[in-house]
Order: sequence, then C-alpha cells, then structure tokens
Amino acid sequence: MTKVYVSGVGITKFGKRKESLQTLMYEAYVHATKNQEQEFDAIFVGCMNPDEFVGDSNFATLIADHLGLYQTPSVRIDNAPASGSAAFEQAFFSVASGHYEKVLVLAGEKMSIFPTSIATRILSKLIDKYERNTGATMPALAALVTRRYMHDYNLSREELALAAVKNHHNGTLNPYAQFQKEITVEDILKSKMIADPLRLYDCASISDGACAVILTASKTDVKVTGIGHATDFLSLQYRDSLTSFNATKVAAKRAYKRAHRQPKDIDVAEVHDAFTILEIVNPEDLGFFKPGEGVAALIEGKTGLNGDKPINPSGGLKARGHPVGATGLAQICEIVWQLREEAGKRQVPANIGLCHNIGGFVNNNIVTILESC
Amino acid sequence: MTKVYVSGVGITKFGKRKESLQTLMYEAYVHATKNQEQEFDAIFVGCMNPDEFVGDSNFATLIADHLGLYQTPSVRIDNAPASGSAAFEQAFFSVASGHYEKVLVLAGEKMSIFPTSIATRILSKLIDKYERNTGATMPALAALVTRRYMHDYNLSREELALAAVKNHHNGTLNPYAQFQKEITVEDILKSKMIADPLRLYDCASISDGACAVILTASKTDVKVTGIGHATDFLSLQYRDSLTSFNATKVAAKRAYKRAHRQPKDIDVAEVHDAFTILEIVNPEDLGFFKPGEGVAALIEGKTGLNGDKPINPSGGLKARGHPVGATGLAQICEIVWQLREEAGKRQVPANIGLCHNIGGFVNNNIVTILESC
Repeated sequence: MTKVYVSGVGITKFGKRKESLQTLMYEAYVHATKNQEQEFDAIFVGCMNPDEFVGDSNFATLIADHLGLYQTPSVRIDNAPASGSAAFEQAFFSVASGHYEKVLVLAGEKMSIFPTSIATRILSKLIDKYERNTGATMPALAALVTRRYMHDYNLSREELALAAVKNHHNGTLNPYAQFQKEITVEDILKSKMIADPLRLYDCASISDGACAVILTASKTDVKVTGIGHATDFLSLQYRDSLTSFNATKVAAKRAYKRAHRQPKDIDVAEVHDAFTILEIVNPEDLGFFKPGEGVAALIEGKTGLNGDKPINPSGGLKARGHPVGATGLAQICEIVWQLREEAGKRQVPANIGLCHNIGGFVNNNIVTILESC
Repeated sequence: MTKVYVSGVGITKFGKRKESLQTLMYEAYVHATKNQEQEFDAIFVGCMNPDEFVGDSNFATLIADHLGLYQTPSVRIDNAPASGSAAFEQAFFSVASGHYEKVLVLAGEKMSIFPTSIATRILSKLIDKYERNTGATMPALAALVTRRYMHDYNLSREELALAAVKNHHNGTLNPYAQFQKEITVEDILKSKMIADPLRLYDCASISDGACAVILTASKTDVKVTGIGHATDFLSLQYRDSLTSFNATKVAAKRAYKRAHRQPKDIDVAEVHDAFTILEIVNPEDLGFFKPGEGVAALIEGKTGLNGDKPINPSGGLKARGHPVGATGLAQICEIVWQLREEAGKRQVPANIGLCHNIGGFVNNNIVTILESC
C-alpha cells in the first residue's frame, strides 16, 4: 500500500455565511493551496445534501468547474454528517492504491438558507423512517441517550453543561469558530428547551462552512496512519446500549489496529460533539476513559487544553459550528494544525492525533489517526 | 497496486417497481451472492438522489442495516447518473489499495414514485443553474446536440430513430430490460414530441431498479484493467463542441492508457444512450468511429449484435431502462455476462469489454474496461 500524507489544509470561518456553497469551498481551497495554482489527479467532495440544502445536484461537477480544475475527475461522497471524513477516506484509498498521486478533498455544507424548522426536517431524514414517523428528531434521540446516561452514571444537568462550557472556551481561541465567546453553566441552563433535558446550548448549530485537504503520495510532515469505519443499526431501538455506541467502538478498534496504536497513544482528539452528551460518551467509546468515567475526566479538566487528553481543542461541533458535510474534514484540519504546531493559542503538545466523525445518529462512524513524521 | 477482480454480479428487472429502493438493492444482492451468506469488508452504494426520490438520507447506513451486513463500513457515492460506475470506481480503489479484500458495490434508484413532471424537475437540478433558469431540461440540451449533429453530418430524423430500433431489439433478448418489445422507425416518429426533434422514444425512461457487483483481490475470470474519469464544464455553452464531448474523450483516453488497450481492442461496449443521439456520438468519442461516421456504423449494423463492434447488447438505457444511479453498474453487469458467455440470446464474442457512463449532461463521465482472464 502506498503511504499517504497530508499536504495543505484550509478552512473557512464557520457560521451564517452569505456566499454560495461553491464559493465557500473555493475559499477553503485557496487557503489550502496558499493561493498557488496546483494540479490534482482527482477531487473528492464531501457534502451531505446539496440537492435539498442549496438546490444543486451533480455537485461534484459543479465544484470542479467552479474551481477551474478543468477535466479533473470529481465525485461526491455522502455519509450523512460523516461525509467530510468519508470523502477523506475515499481519497485516501485512491492515493494508497497508487492510482492517483495527489488529490484534493473538499467538504462543506450550507444549511442556513432555510429557517431552522425546514433544516430540522431535512436532517430528520437521517433517522430510521419508523422512528422518524413517531416524531423523533436528532435532538430527541440525543435526549433519550442523555436521560439514560444520567440514570446509569448519576450525571447531573450542571455537569453535562460543562462540556459546552469547555468547548466554547476553546472556540474563543479558534478564529474559524462560529462562536467565539465563553458561556457559563447558567447560560446553558437558561437557554431554550429543545428536547428535555437538552437545551439550545447543548446542541451544535445550523451552520455554513467548508474545508479543504490535499492528500499526496509524496512525504510530508503528517502521515495518515489509520482509518477505521463501522456502521450500526439505523434505528436506535435495536442498539446494544443507549450510552455506548458500537459504530464508534468498532471503527476505533479498526483504526487503532491499522495504525498499530492504542487509546493511550493518542495525544489529542477531535470528537463529534453534536450534543453535549456525546462529548462525554465518545471519549469513553474511543477507549480514553472507562464507561461512566468520561464525566469525571471532563470535570477534572483532563480533556481541557491543559489536560493530558485534550478533546476538541478547536471548540468542537458545539463552538466551531456544524455544517454537517464539513465537520469531519474540519476535525482533520484541526489535528493537522495541532501536529504542525500551528494551532495558535489553543495549541497542545501532540505527535499523534485522532478524529472521530459520526454519520446519522451514531450509526455510520469513521475514526482517522494522523501522526507527525 | 493490488489487482482487482469481479466475482458475483446481480440485477433486478428494471421498470416501474412496487418495492422500496432498499428491497430492490436486496434483490440484486441476493442475485449477486447466489443467496449464499457472505461477508464484505465494505459496501459502496451508488445512488444519485435518495433524499428526494425516496425521502431517505443516511442511505448508506440504511442499506447496510437492511441487508443485515452488521457493522460493515458503508458509504454512498453520488456522481449524478454516473453514480453506479463511480461507486464501482471507489470500490476498486479500496481493493487496489490493499485496504479491503472483498467489497460489495450496490447501485440503484427508484424514480417512479412521483409523476414524470416532478421527476423531471429533480433531474433538472443536474443542469447548470443559469441554463436551468432559461427553462433547459436534459431532453432540451440533448435536442440542441441532435440539431447540431443533423446540421453538421446530414443525419436524418429516420436514421436517428435506428438507434432506438436497435436497442429495443436487443432489449427483447434481455429478461431484465424494462422494455422487451421491438419498435419501428414509424413508432418513434409517431411518439409524443418531447424537445424538437427528440420524441418520447428517443429518450430513456423514468425507471426503478438496482444492481450488485462483488469486487475482490482474489483471482476470478474477470479483471478490472482500466478506469478513466473526466469532467467538463457544467454548462453546455462553454464546451468545445456540441457534437463531441471532452469528458468522454478524456475519460476514455485515461482508461485505455491504464488498460494498455486501444479502441480497436474493445470487443463489446455498453454506452450511455440516455438519448438516441448519444448512441451515435458516444462510440465516436470512444474512438470506435471517426466523427460523423457513427451513424453509418449504426445503419450498416456494425454496432448490432452481429456487427464487429456490438454496442449496448443489453438494450442500453433506452430499452433496459435508466434508474439513474443503477445504470453504470448495470453496464458492468452486462459486460461481465458477455465476458463469461452468460448473456443468453444476446451473447456476442468478447474477451474485452468497455462501459461508458455519463454524469450530468455529459460532464462527469467514467469509462471502465473489463477483461476475461
């Protein structure tokens, strides 16, 4: 297998953006290429639902055309909110195979065109049809998980809020984050109820944004050492547990095996905190902490910027924002900056980093391990 | 690069089907696996627009779950009507890289739920927004190409109809084809006008259907020897020509180079005849005939089942039907059957076959070469 390295990475500021989705991708592309003209063997576009969010199909062609990458092969990858890391995964295969030498991965979503009610309806199609027809939404499923975790591990509402407090703090140090302000436990507990016990500030935002990553067979300072991918039942009711997710555990196991690493080797991780409860559950499923101990790690600051297992230094989905298709690639950008010591005020010591991206409601997950070299 | 081989292939009957899209994919999967339980390292799902056609997002997970392929990585590939061959291409990379040993490619679309007017509106999002806003539809663009070809090469309306006559004849020999009846030039010229000069029988149908292909690193009797992929400007107005398409020519050149083959080496081809004019233009762009000579080849029977360059023995998109996401993989199934001498009454002599799949209006094309071994 050809070794695969990361060259340039780029990102736009996340948030409500006026520009078109293709213009956001162009902005990320210019950032990743440092505005130098480059040729690519192919383009892999991670985007969940341009057909409905922006009204364009044939989106891979639109992007190749808009970027002026004439005749370059281009394909769109949809893995629900794990589309960004899935595009990275497919691009990885294409370089690892020797078929291509240098490829461009783009990922993005523009979700803010519609009011939140319509965006929520579009997002609800991610859920199993039978659960959806009972009125379930993504926050409703996350609320079920939260209640169960509270019951099983005596998590309090105030402790849960600390996940958002931490990530908003990190977001203040990330110039690309949608939210760059501190919030308090009180702010969270006063915010609008979305799905009991989850309030507005427990949920990642509707957002716009894009990222770009260049993968190459030529050696650079960052190597892709392991990718693991796993699915689970679409419907939440059939899962083994409500407080631990097989799609994460199996994807992580596969990634660790390929990278010849263990959870203790990971210096920094970006995990998919679409809801505050996932900031606690994901690190447990990734093997960083035992079941039920994720909350203590959070309270004790182990997952903070000065802790020994920093999680979501970027601010995570909560503060960086969550343009669904972009998120997985935004995690990879952050880990690359951390490995290159280019993360500014949110820099942590790191030679080995991990990204964890969730598709659907925790049923199609991808774990990617990147290392300095 | 690890060599990649085709193991099982399967297909459903195309046409208006009552079953859900996931049930159609399951039917194709059972056909490909001969109803034997098998394990796969990953699933690659080619489907253009399940979000709008069937109202399900997170479709890759839905399929893994519906097929009972528990925890198997699954990803959806969208390349407009070239989604089937794009899923095959990504699956190819994953095996060629050595990352996976045996993977399942599924492709399908269910388009018949809505009336044709709504399906046409969904399909029109494939076109550049500015052209679309002038009222352009896919048949309207194909009509422009047809008029220009008629002007440049003295193609008559009656000669054009022969493409559909030929493919409908082939369709009568294909038990999976949507249309299994002969049609005459007169039938075509009497059919409803869609976009002058194209009539109903010049256009591929709205259809439902699915296909499955198993790719493996273990040697079988059919090898994937070359894949080429190229894009072109999204908008038709910027293309070099209206009667010859760079996305086909460049994709073909790349596929021939990888397979170390030339157009003359190809024994049989499936080409993307979404409109009758493309049955004439595509073989020219693939290098089988000189510009303007595709029509003579058709009239003289060179592209018929008894000709020396049989094109679309399956009946093509015209008679087999065109459930957009399925088409590219249906072409691959047909070529595999031809190479294995399993094509029944439509069998032609073949050791080397080619598939040509178009995304958008001829702007994101994939050419795949398969060979007996």
